Amino acid sequence: MNKKNRFRDSALRLSGISRLSKHGHRVKPGELPGIEHIAAALTAPEAGSVAISYIDYSASHIETGDITNLDAFLDKPLPSWAAVRWINVSNMHPYVINQFRQHFEFHTLTAEDVLHVTQRPRVENFDDHLFVVLRMLKLVQHDAEGVATDSLLDTEQVSIFLYDKVLITFQEKPGDVWQPIRERLQTEGMRIRKNGPGYLLYAMLDAVVDHCFPVLEHYGDLLEDLEIITLENPSPDVLRRIHCVKRELALLRRIVWPMRELVDHVYREEEGRINESTRPYLRDVYEHTIQIVEIIESYREIASGLTDLYMSAVSNRMNEIMKVLTIMSSVFIPLTFIAGVYGMNFKFMPELSLRWGYPVVWGMFVVLTLGMVLFFKRKGWIDRR
Amino acid sequence: MNKKNRFRDSALRLSGISRLSKHGHRVKPGELPGIEHIAAALTAPEAGSVAISYIDYSASHIETGDITNLDAFLDKPLPSWAAVRWINVSNMHPYVINQFRQHFEFHTLTAEDVLHVTQRPRVENFDDHLFVVLRMLKLVQHDAEGVATDSLLDTEQVSIFLYDKVLITFQEKPGDVWQPIRERLQTEGMRIRKNGPGYLLYAMLDAVVDHCFPVLEHYGDLLEDLEIITLENPSPDVLRRIHCVKRELALLRRIVWPMRELVDHVYREEEGRINESTRPYLRDVYEHTIQIVEIIESYREIASGLTDLYMSAVSNRMNEIMKVLTIMSSVFIPLTFIAGVYGMNFKFMPELSLRWGYPVVWGMFVVLTLGMVLFFKRKGWIDRR
Amino acid sequence: MNKKNRFRDSALRLSGISRLSKHGHRVKPGELPGIEHIAAALTAPEAGSVAISYIDYSASHIETGDITNLDAFLDKPLPSWAAVRWINVSNMHPYVINQFRQHFEFHTLTAEDVLHVTQRPRVENFDDHLFVVLRMLKLVQHDAEGVATDSLLDTEQVSIFLYDKVLITFQEKPGDVWQPIRERLQTEGMRIRKNGPGYLLYAMLDAVVDHCFPVLEHYGDLLEDLEIITLENPSPDVLRRIHCVKRELALLRRIVWPMRELVDHVYREEEGRINESTRPYLRDVYEHTIQIVEIIESYREIASGLTDLYMSAVSNRMNEIMKVLTIMSSVFIPLTFIAGVYGMNFKFMPELSLRWGYPVVWGMFVVLTLGMVLFFKRKGWIDRR
Amino acid sequence: MNKKNRFRDSALRLSGISRLSKHGHRVKPGELPGIEHIAAALTAPEAGSVAISYIDYSASHIETGDITNLDAFLDKPLPSWAAVRWINVSNMHPYVINQFRQHFEFHTLTAEDVLHVTQRPRVENFDDHLFVVLRMLKLVQHDAEGVATDSLLDTEQVSIFLYDKVLITFQEKPGDVWQPIRERLQTEGMRIRKNGPGYLLYAMLDAVVDHCFPVLEHYGDLLEDLEIITLENPSPDVLRRIHCVKRELALLRRIVWPMRELVDHVYREEEGRINESTRPYLRDVYEHTIQIVEIIESYREIASGLTDLYMSAVSNRMNEIMKVLTIMSSVFIPLTFIAGVYGMNFKFMPELSLRWGYPVVWGMFVVLTLGMVLFFKRKGWIDRR
Amino acid sequence: MNKKNRFRDSALRLSGISRLSKHGHRVKPGELPGIEHIAAALTAPEAGSVAISYIDYSASHIETGDITNLDAFLDKPLPSWAAVRWINVSNMHPYVINQFRQHFEFHTLTAEDVLHVTQRPRVENFDDHLFVVLRMLKLVQHDAEGVATDSLLDTEQVSIFLYDKVLITFQEKPGDVWQPIRERLQTEGMRIRKNGPGYLLYAMLDAVVDHCFPVLEHYGDLLEDLEIITLENPSPDVLRRIHCVKRELALLRRIVWPMRELVDHVYREEEGRINESTRPYLRDVYEHTIQIVEIIESYREIASGLTDLYMSAVSNRMNEIMKVLTIMSSVFIPLTFIAGVYGMNFKFMPELSLRWGYPVVWGMFVVLTLGMVLFFKRKGWIDRR
Ligand SMILES: [Mg+2]
Ligand SMILES: [Mg+2]
Ligand SMILES: [Mg+2]
Ligand SMILES: [Mg+2]
Ligand SMILES: [Mg+2]
Ligand SMILES: [Mg+2]
Ligand SMILES: [Mg+2]
Ligand SMILES: [Mg+2]
Ligand SMILES: [Mg+2]
Ligand SMILES: [Mg+2]
Ligand SMILES: [Mg+2]
Ligand SMILES: [Mg+2]
Ligand SMILES: [Mg+2]
Ligand SMILES: [Mg+2]
Ligand SMILES: [Mg+2]
Ligand SMILES: [Mg+2]
Ligand SMILES: [Mg+2]
Ligand SMILES: [Mg+2]
Ligand SMILES: [Mg+2]
Ligand SMILES: [Mg+2]
Ligand SMILES: [Mg+2]
Ligand SMILES: [Mg+2]
Ligand SMILES: [Mg+2]
Ligand SMILES: [Mg+2]
Ligand SMILES: [Mg+2]
Ligand SMILES: [Mg+2]
Ligand SMILES: [Mg+2]
Ligand SMILES: [Mg+2]
Ligand SMILES: [Mg+2]
Ligand SMILES: [Mg+2]
Ligand SMILES: [Mg+2]
Repeated sequence: MNKKNRFRDSALRLSGISRLSKHGHRVKPGELPGIEHIAAALTAPEAGSVAISYIDYSASHIETGDITNLDAFLDKPLPSWAAVRWINVSNMHPYVINQFRQHFEFHTLTAEDVLHVTQRPRVENFDDHLFVVLRMLKLVQHDAEGVATDSLLDTEQVSIFLYDKVLITFQEKPGDVWQPIRERLQTEGMRIRKNGPGYLLYAMLDAVVDHCFPVLEHYGDLLEDLEIITLENPSPDVLRRIHCVKRELALLRRIVWPMRELVDHVYREEEGRINESTRPYLRDVYEHTIQIVEIIESYREIASGLTDLYMSAVSNRMNEIMKVLTIMSSVFIPLTFIAGVYGMNFKFMPELSLRWGYPVVWGMFVVLTLGMVLFFKRKGWIDRR
Repeated sequence: MNKKNRFRDSALRLSGISRLSKHGHRVKPGELPGIEHIAAALTAPEAGSVAISYIDYSASHIETGDITNLDAFLDKPLPSWAAVRWINVSNMHPYVINQFRQHFEFHTLTAEDVLHVTQRPRVENFDDHLFVVLRMLKLVQHDAEGVATDSLLDTEQVSIFLYDKVLITFQEKPGDVWQPIRERLQTEGMRIRKNGPGYLLYAMLDAVVDHCFPVLEHYGDLLEDLEIITLENPSPDVLRRIHCVKRELALLRRIVWPMRELVDHVYREEEGRINESTRPYLRDVYEHTIQIVEIIESYREIASGLTDLYMSAVSNRMNEIMKVLTIMSSVFIPLTFIAGVYGMNFKFMPELSLRWGYPVVWGMFVVLTLGMVLFFKRKGWIDRR
Repeated sequence: MNKKNRFRDSALRLSGISRLSKHGHRVKPGELPGIEHIAAALTAPEAGSVAISYIDYSASHIETGDITNLDAFLDKPLPSWAAVRWINVSNMHPYVINQFRQHFEFHTLTAEDVLHVTQRPRVENFDDHLFVVLRMLKLVQHDAEGVATDSLLDTEQVSIFLYDKVLITFQEKPGDVWQPIRERLQTEGMRIRKNGPGYLLYAMLDAVVDHCFPVLEHYGDLLEDLEIITLENPSPDVLRRIHCVKRELALLRRIVWPMRELVDHVYREEEGRINESTRPYLRDVYEHTIQIVEIIESYREIASGLTDLYMSAVSNRMNEIMKVLTIMSSVFIPLTFIAGVYGMNFKFMPELSLRWGYPVVWGMFVVLTLGMVLFFKRKGWIDRR
Repeated sequence: MNKKNRFRDSALRLSGISRLSKHGHRVKPGELPGIEHIAAALTAPEAGSVAISYIDYSASHIETGDITNLDAFLDKPLPSWAAVRWINVSNMHPYVINQFRQHFEFHTLTAEDVLHVTQRPRVENFDDHLFVVLRMLKLVQHDAEGVATDSLLDTEQVSIFLYDKVLITFQEKPGDVWQPIRERLQTEGMRIRKNGPGYLLYAMLDAVVDHCFPVLEHYGDLLEDLEIITLENPSPDVLRRIHCVKRELALLRRIVWPMRELVDHVYREEEGRINESTRPYLRDVYEHTIQIVEIIESYREIASGLTDLYMSAVSNRMNEIMKVLTIMSSVFIPLTFIAGVYGMNFKFMPELSLRWGYPVVWGMFVVLTLGMVLFFKRKGWIDRR
Repeated sequence: MNKKNRFRDSALRLSGISRLSKHGHRVKPGELPGIEHIAAALTAPEAGSVAISYIDYSASHIETGDITNLDAFLDKPLPSWAAVRWINVSNMHPYVINQFRQHFEFHTLTAEDVLHVTQRPRVENFDDHLFVVLRMLKLVQHDAEGVATDSLLDTEQVSIFLYDKVLITFQEKPGDVWQPIRERLQTEGMRIRKNGPGYLLYAMLDAVVDHCFPVLEHYGDLLEDLEIITLENPSPDVLRRIHCVKRELALLRRIVWPMRELVDHVYREEEGRINESTRPYLRDVYEHTIQIVEIIESYREIASGLTDLYMSAVSNRMNEIMKVLTIMSSVFIPLTFIAGVYGMNFKFMPELSLRWGYPVVWGMFVVLTLGMVLFFKRKGWIDRR
């Protein structure tokens, strides 16, 4: 992969976040708001191309399954034994989102936000539901040397609707960080089985926030490596890597920063969708988001310091080079001059006929060389290298 | 175009925004406030020089037209079937603005702000109308290479008056980003046809804010290109371009930043000019303004990082140059000295008569050269280039 | 003028603002507060040395004049036809200030602030009057080239007392920006003639704030010039000028920044000294102060960027110099070595006797030179200059 | 220790704070919240591996001891004479924390925070207790020269539970800064003996905050040393040390900054757990935390200044080197040229036969050398070194 | 004084403010809070070693004296004619502070703050008194050249207790800025004689704040000098001095910044200890503290700009040096090569026998030299120096 592509394919691309959604369909600014008008929202997707699954559970029962006929599923009432239903949509399709919108009667702009996967993380409070949109980070590769490659983060937008008994999640693409939650749901007696959809929402937020720590740890390792390399061998490539880390930390902060506010909003939710017993759990998540933001800030400062460190390492290296040149030139240029003098062809140059002329000149060479070496040693240019 | 002009003709000129309006007439500081006293406000403009059009519409009817006799048009009452009238003035003339001021009785200072096209974006609340002034951005050219030219943005001030049933827009110059709105208005059944002028105002704000995204995308691409060029070929021209991007982002932020507050003010408007059903739409626009501001901030940080990257690329290049000089000098200066020694004309130089003198000296040349090359290789000055 | 003086005589001197007033008399820290104790406050100034004038006006009448006997003037009651009296003191004298203090009964510390012309702009609210102190800027010279000289701003402190029917202004030195106001006052039917002293205060603030725009425009032009010069011909003098602009913008901000708050305080004044119909005018001035502050901030950022631009222009120039040196040295040093070899005086140097030796050596010279030139061309050191 | 290890073993490691706890057991993100599920919480630790001690005291009595059977100890009621009981756990074990959690009924997430020793310092208010978690700093080594080594700080997390009559402290590892408190407790008549557990909490916070001052003093000394070294002998190692100080100050601030808020929260506690007579003591601690934060900020600014100082010291040194090279080259290169001229072998070179040719050339050498030396002296390159 | 000492003896030392008090006795962190326990508080100081004086005054009477027997003095009631008593303690002793504490019943921690002379300036409100602690600045030397030496500020902590009729001041060391107040007190009819201890407190704060202006003026002069020197003769010593100014301004700000809040707190004091007629005086002092803070901020920005100015001056100087080297080398190296060519000893070198060979070579020398000089002139390297 060439340099151009390396930048272009980074998961935290500059323009990638600002760019109009590829999955979405808002091609031109100024188009109609909402989702109904989109052509793709009128045609059902190919069978199997959108994976939808559900988990119904209560303290004593659990039932899981895949949904093939969505309309039929949504029309059936929730089983009476079920305390909570979690419906998970693993990838995007306007038609499917629109089906949910029609059934659960959420706003067409909210449906659009689900589809346009460049939302800023936030919470929106509606009469009968809470809408949460956030970005899920996952560290996908971390090579053996502890040195990161350019594309290390897999991020995707996740939209969550919290209703009285139902929680719906829309993911940008398959795969998520919630497998441990699914396993806990399967185990009877677990706290998550005894609580409502608010606790399930907490568990999801907790998993998403927890997955930021390995990412941070990765950047911490990376910064330590870069620190050492900068001091030992400041090649131009190091600077490119420092620059990448700075850029990625800046974008990472833009992703994580609103999550702090998001968790705080869920924590302070007042409509009774979050039980009192769930609040301490959300406070715990909130503490983690503060910690993450503080760590990112520290890393950004340290990365800035690395740029200075690099610049002065380069300057020091230049000093080294110049010292060598200056010492070589200062030692040999005078000697060459003297040799040149006695290479002149004047008829009357009495020294040339002297028996000891040649050895004396060699003596001068040695004395001058020693003198220059002493001079540079005293200046500290030779020993201290 | 020479460098001077390149800076001077940029749409985001330094002094261009601060400079007293060219379209306006406030030549000297300290002159009379208001619009009535301006000479040009007393003389009607040449026929056809100011294009004014109107659209009257309701859920079921729509009528559009150009206005040639403004006073006559304003004196006629709004047709009874019309729910909303939108009057659009495509360019500036004090006389025309004053005609509107007299009919709609807005403040003379507000009329002045319409004329002086360097207003800071903001909302002002009056007894019977809302006054919104903002800056419309439009990306006008984007060459094939994805590399921006100096003048890429077309910006103009737009002033909007929102009355009970009437919405008036004054543009600085012809052309706008509202063509999709005009098309939607022509389609019966569209949400915009069923709503009042508040929704029309939303649609206008939405179109203006949406047009910021291609601009951001453009700067994102530009930064990525500059990143790659900086690393590969840091010519002095790159720095000029980085500097231009920084300068334009600074000025762009000054344009966009107050729009966030503007949209929030319209969203929180309490006089009933904005329907409850329109508020979620404005909240959506508000989210976009936050996102835009955050993206601009990220870009500014990255552009700053590019300056550092450039500076150290230049330093690295200097190191390269100095290494070549030092290696060449350090290898040949001692050899030249030796050659000089045996070019001396001393009578008694026993080496000169030796049969193997000359080959031995050549041997010395080779050994010294190899020694120096080895020395520089060990220092890492040769291989690692 | 030498460099030292150039800095020392700048209107925006570093220490000039902090320095204890020259016009004032507070020589030693810790002296008595207030004005009565000052020796100069006890002795009347030389006749004519302090110019005081008045304008009495109402919608239908106006009378202007100079005041020679202040005490007598102050003892006479305001003519019954006069709605507003404006007394203007054109320069400072403790005795005169004290006369006003005794008649209008303002606080001795306020009198002191009038005299000590280094006040921070602000408003103070008293029982029967409003005290406004601000700094008036005036662009005094702007040479033909659009390049500023070091001393371009004339600033002076202005203190304003707003009573029920009387407005008193104290200026630091003769000359002000209020001539257009005086002219408008002479014209019957003008809005200013029909309004009270609150509107007169507005007109004064408006004129002062409006005069900031040509100053800003001047700095905008200056920055654009410096930008071009920096890119084309970065002489050390450019940096001095950039530094001066930065310094002056920093000090300018310190002058303008509190004016924003000052205008806001007058706008929100609650004692009824400002008519409701005057408030929109003050809001207009307030908008301008925000705009000025934002422009100054942008200029400061751009000036900072210019420093970086300069530094790298200098580095680029160094690269140019080093390339020339390296190319010259690398081409000729090896050639000189070869020439030196065949200048050696060994008896047995078979090449020397060869018929084609000399031309072959010249061939080597040419080949080596071409090789080095090719090498440097491939490195991009020759063509791209 | 090599450079890599030097960074890696620093007490204020970059990733060390963000890294998931080594003492804790939360291996994978997304695991169960709380402490009960941890395997280690189900198995009692080896006897003696966790040191627990208690001090029961009142104004007149005191009893101290080590706890071997924790469950038995907790089941026994507090002696009636005892006003306060302090239980101190010197190191971490999930089983022990769980025993306390079951007896004192604190939240399972709080128990988890005790175990996961990377908490951000903070206070949490519960119905019947206050939970305080903070980081204890201790300066462990400070060599004779006053120059710090890389690992100088010993930090550990301390968790404190304040109940009505009982105060429990959990430490990350053995050793603390509270020995003086234990000694004071042994002395009858001391204020601490007459007050409740709130005063004991104050004494603990005071000791922790007081121990920040020697740490700050250490960094102050370090910065002064680095300042002097930078000016006298700016070796590359200095920069590494400046960078380390900056990095450590950044991380130190992240530790200390939330302690300010923590102390303020305890000071403003409203449940009556802190006596009115104890509040002035907490206000005193609060003042110290503000002072510490301000000192850290100053140090960070000064450390930033040191980087600039270093960079320009390096540039100055480069200037020195280049001056030597330029002077040597400029003096001898022309001389060598002249010598070369008279080393040419042209048949017709009349100067060569002149009697005074050789001495005249030597005269030229001397004159040229003196001329160059004079030229460089006038440029200030020779004397001012 | 060597460099080390120069830093070490600065009045605004880095560690000097953070360091545990030398006058105080809190040797180890974690020791007992308060003052009674200190050994020195139990032993009376040597007679005469602590100078205590008092001034009793009312509008009509005044009595001053030195206190030798403190306990006896405190036991005597205040004379009935006295409206205010000011007791001034000129230097620190724990025993004396403890005597006051016992008599005036202030808190033991407040007594400790009096003793530990590194307090952050602040106000504390107690039931029957106000406690003010601040830092008094005094410019002690300012040499004839207007160039500051390293130790120019004399600072000391001053603690003030304001009771109903009594004001007590504790100074760190003899000498203060309040001599003008003492003189005013001696003059009957002065405002200070007619007012209570609140006005006396105002006069003290005013004197302390006023003494900041000469300090600022000194730094303003210093910055202007450094500006000129940096542009004219950027020796390494200049940078050290810029760095010192930056450091001192940072520390100065830390001293002055809390004084603003302090004066505001006294101004807003609500217990009636400050008369309504005194408040305008405190507002005046408050304005000065704002102005001082703003001036310090400006100076800090300017000092930062000076570092950039210095760095580029150094770079420019490097360019100068390199130009000389490059010109000398580029002119003479080719000439030397040509001379070397004709110094070769080939048998067949036809040019050598030519009659005009030697003059033609000299012609080449001249032409080449002129060519190079022209080349460099066109590059602007020669003339523009
Ligand atoms: Mg993203
Ligand atoms: Mg968003
Ligand atoms: Mg975003
Ligand atoms: Mg945000
Ligand atoms: Mg945490
Ligand atoms: Mg680091
Ligand atoms: Mg502008
Ligand atoms: Mg604008
Ligand atoms: Mg504006
Ligand atoms: Mg703004
Ligand atoms: Mg959005
Ligand atoms: Mg980047
Ligand atoms: Mg820099
Ligand atoms: Mg001024
Ligand atoms: Mg002021
Ligand atoms: Mg000021
Ligand atoms: Mg201010
Ligand atoms: Mg304006
Ligand atoms: Mg610019
Ligand atoms: Mg830690
Ligand atoms: Mg935490
Ligand atoms: Mg932390
Ligand atoms: Mg914090
Ligand atoms: Mg303290
Ligand atoms: Mg320092
Ligand atoms: Mg300090
Ligand atoms: Mg202090
Ligand atoms: Mg303090
Ligand atoms: Mg503070
Ligand atoms: Mg003042
Ligand atoms: Mg300056």
